[in-house]
Amino acid sequence: MNKRAMLRRAIARNEFSLAAGVHDALSARIAQRSGFQVLWASGLGISASYGVPDDSILTMTEFLNAARAMNDATELPVLADCDTGYGDIRNVARMVDQYERAGIAGVCIEDKVFPKRNSLGSGAQVQETVEAFCTKIETAKKTQRTSDFVVVARIETFISGGSKEDAIRRADAYAEAGADAVLIHSKARDGREILDFGRSWPNKDVPMVAVPTTYPDISAEELRSAGFSLAIYANQALRASITAMQQSLTHISKHCSTSQLESEIATLGEVFKLQV
Amino acid sequence: MNKRAMLRRAIARNEFSLAAGVHDALSARIAQRSGFQVLWASGLGISASYGVPDDSILTMTEFLNAARAMNDATELPVLADCDTGYGDIRNVARMVDQYERAGIAGVCIEDKVFPKRNSLGSGAQVQETVEAFCTKIETAKKTQRTSDFVVVARIETFISGGSKEDAIRRADAYAEAGADAVLIHSKARDGREILDFGRSWPNKDVPMVAVPTTYPDISAEELRSAGFSLAIYANQALRASITAMQQSLTHISKHCSTSQLESEIATLGEVFKLQV
Amino acid sequence: MNKRAMLRRAIARNEFSLAAGVHDALSARIAQRSGFQVLWASGLGISASYGVPDDSILTMTEFLNAARAMNDATELPVLADCDTGYGDIRNVARMVDQYERAGIAGVCIEDKVFPKRNSLGSGAQVQETVEAFCTKIETAKKTQRTSDFVVVARIETFISGGSKEDAIRRADAYAEAGADAVLIHSKARDGREILDFGRSWPNKDVPMVAVPTTYPDISAEELRSAGFSLAIYANQALRASITAMQQSLTHISKHCSTSQLESEIATLGEVFKLQV
Amino acid sequence: MNKRAMLRRAIARNEFSLAAGVHDALSARIAQRSGFQVLWASGLGISASYGVPDDSILTMTEFLNAARAMNDATELPVLADCDTGYGDIRNVARMVDQYERAGIAGVCIEDKVFPKRNSLGSGAQVQETVEAFCTKIETAKKTQRTSDFVVVARIETFISGGSKEDAIRRADAYAEAGADAVLIHSKARDGREILDFGRSWPNKDVPMVAVPTTYPDISAEELRSAGFSLAIYANQALRASITAMQQSLTHISKHCSTSQLESEIATLGEVFKLQV
Repeated sequence: MNKRAMLRRAIARNEFSLAAGVHDALSARIAQRSGFQVLWASGLGISASYGVPDDSILTMTEFLNAARAMNDATELPVLADCDTGYGDIRNVARMVDQYERAGIAGVCIEDKVFPKRNSLGSGAQVQETVEAFCTKIETAKKTQRTSDFVVVARIETFISGGSKEDAIRRADAYAEAGADAVLIHSKARDGREILDFGRSWPNKDVPMVAVPTTYPDISAEELRSAGFSLAIYANQALRASITAMQQSLTHISKHCSTSQLESEIATLGEVFKLQV
Repeated sequence: MNKRAMLRRAIARNEFSLAAGVHDALSARIAQRSGFQVLWASGLGISASYGVPDDSILTMTEFLNAARAMNDATELPVLADCDTGYGDIRNVARMVDQYERAGIAGVCIEDKVFPKRNSLGSGAQVQETVEAFCTKIETAKKTQRTSDFVVVARIETFISGGSKEDAIRRADAYAEAGADAVLIHSKARDGREILDFGRSWPNKDVPMVAVPTTYPDISAEELRSAGFSLAIYANQALRASITAMQQSLTHISKHCSTSQLESEIATLGEVFKLQV
Repeated sequence: MNKRAMLRRAIARNEFSLAAGVHDALSARIAQRSGFQVLWASGLGISASYGVPDDSILTMTEFLNAARAMNDATELPVLADCDTGYGDIRNVARMVDQYERAGIAGVCIEDKVFPKRNSLGSGAQVQETVEAFCTKIETAKKTQRTSDFVVVARIETFISGGSKEDAIRRADAYAEAGADAVLIHSKARDGREILDFGRSWPNKDVPMVAVPTTYPDISAEELRSAGFSLAIYANQALRASITAMQQSLTHISKHCSTSQLESEIATLGEVFKLQV
Repeated sequence: MNKRAMLRRAIARNEFSLAAGVHDALSARIAQRSGFQVLWASGLGISASYGVPDDSILTMTEFLNAARAMNDATELPVLADCDTGYGDIRNVARMVDQYERAGIAGVCIEDKVFPKRNSLGSGAQVQETVEAFCTKIETAKKTQRTSDFVVVARIETFISGGSKEDAIRRADAYAEAGADAVLIHSKARDGREILDFGRSWPNKDVPMVAVPTTYPDISAEELRSAGFSLAIYANQALRASITAMQQSLTHISKHCSTSQLESEIATLGEVFKLQV
């Protein structure tokens, strides 16, 4: 089964899968062997790996190269976080062409205006009109050459302070425009609006995706019960790596020795196993 | 003070500094705030971030792009691990031209034949002749345009099973050829040959560099006492990140929740602080 | 003299220079030996070399890599055509940071909205407000680290069907915002609006730049007389190469022999001379 | 029919096709509309476009990116000039993996030692042993995932001053090792050794390829009669473009006007047609 079919199957309405947000081929390999079914080529993560904000600062080229490396290094399908599609519909067409050629299983575009700001940061959130974003979805679907290629439409209504009604209206429109799945994002701490959306959206044909970053107390099981097919753990690997690098480097800087550190970090042999 | 002067000062014979091996701009930023003075753009680390062996599989282009991103994201000087110089003397000349233009403070080339195998892995180690490698050093020094640019010559004698006499003979020849420092590598578990080399090499003008990976029980202080100016902790951040990513992703995969994980990993706010 | 000072001198109000639009390091080398003083890293040309429209389809990454290769291969200063600055002010800041680090002498940004359409094509032309574009110029000037780095503000008023009054108002505002030069573009066949603008703009401190593509009957001398300091021949090398490649390849395809072609095309020896 | 099948068909023993050497997507597009059946992603041409010698100075990354752009921009199959395979068998395996993933139809590797020197330049030519090169061919064939992917073995015996006997011995060995075609190269002015080889090699199953650069008086028809299936016109488009760019830029530099030049170079409209 090819990777696109794998992704379609993983997110099918009657299935439930976990995606791991990864930022390079190494984290992708680790996600694969940790039991995830899908890789999320995280825009936040890739931006962080370059030390730049997740605010459309890196270009599609860097995001694509990172997604390509993840895909080349693993057997899992990669769903690429493609921000706004990097501009307007012509950029969306270019994006689909290039990601599809690179072997990526699917892309996710969000209904914000380029250049966007990270959804969970303090920057202003400017949402696209429904019409403009539907044209992007239609462009993406029309551009793809392989029938299995997946286009996910990400709704930023809750991020932008909008209502459930707006979110549902957008989900309907995006599904109608051809989206293969909708991702409903939220920065609420309790996750209720996500569960509520999941239970309320009447469309039973188009899979729903959630990203439980700010609402960790909602389990994947609860998301599944609310109708979601995919839970993306978008940045936990990155955040774990930051803490670990900070602690180990501070230790070395302070103690001028790694003697006490050796037992807590991967051996070189383990590193080599990730480089096959 | 420019970064090249910073690097020269950090590794001066009467100084002692710590370098952190990093693999991307993010780990570089963390190393900077953890108190290191120098960044080591690790060939092993960058290769691992692509999921490929550290065996001359990635090209100079990827290594350079990674070093450039590290340099752009920090105030520390970057010493780039440039393997064998990526070929013969013409590749060395190209390499120095490109790394210097990118603002890198210095490069380190090792006296092995291209394509090389990782020094601590199981691959065969083929050392260059002294003469051939001296020509590379001379080429590098002749090519650089800024007087402060640093060229470190890495001696793989102990890695290749050679003797202290050979290592000293090479160190003398490389210093004579113009190397700004020598790096003596070892895969011994006790580090004795490194300390012994440090104490024995009579040249007091050219700084010595050590990489205490396989001999963690030798502290930086002991290296300093033996005459070394720079200790490179080449892969500990990478190894710490691997363990942390493995543990956190396995936890998520198993528990389908990050509720218990949140307190152990960096907050999003901390991530954003590394993306300025 | 460094390249930035060279560029400043080349475009100083009392000077007059010619820039050649080039699309790769090879055309840059040829421009250098043909007597030009400045290289214009053409957005149209670089886009054409990838076979994509000059409509913000390529990303800053490709444009920067091309400009870097031109700069590395020549002794001339590179003035980079940077479209709209690739987004908003944060993209402009990133752009200046990256082009300056790459050794580029200066950048030119135009007062259109991202994603832009080629100024001479049939696409819709959407101009920025004066205020928004002035903020971009101020951002660029504030971001640069070397005092000599040049920021050229390109006025698309005539391209967008605007008036001379608007063009002059914008030129004044852009100069006030810190632009080191203004480029006034036109797609008129007779070039009169360009000469008229040149003679009318009262500011005698800020150099003016013209791009005589559609008005070939206006000579560089006439532009100089009208007050311009730099004439950019932006795409003639590209267009000459297209015709020549088309003719030679058609000849080969038709005659299945290069016997008659040899005397009309560069020898291999000449190619080698361009690859030093 | 996919591009790999197209390439196989184009070079089949009973077929005869012309390949055009191209150096970017633009020249690739022009070659396509000039009637060629195959694109040769020329190592000389791509190196020249960067202004560097064709001596293993650029890395696989630049060559691959150029080949990818050509492939993305055209409907023709791309046969990529991959020098020596960029190192040893592990580099060959990486190369096949990456070129195949990029959609390239086939690769050509030559039996010289890395870093190689251009075959028609003045550099020393060091040929691989038959055994070593056969291992590279076997590695390439073993690595490919799609059955149609083409691996061409290039014989540098005549370039290195060797005999017809050596060339035939190598052709036999390379065919035996799995090469899908053999390319026999020559720098003779009369092309006799090429015709002689073609008529002498007894293997009628494996297609033969020639590159009539130094022997322009041998027509494609003569090559076909001698048994060849593919004639690669490897650098004529590049050479034509150099002459044209040199002439047009010199004209502008001298006359400070393009008035007389307009009728000799492609219109902007023609440029736009190549950017669809």
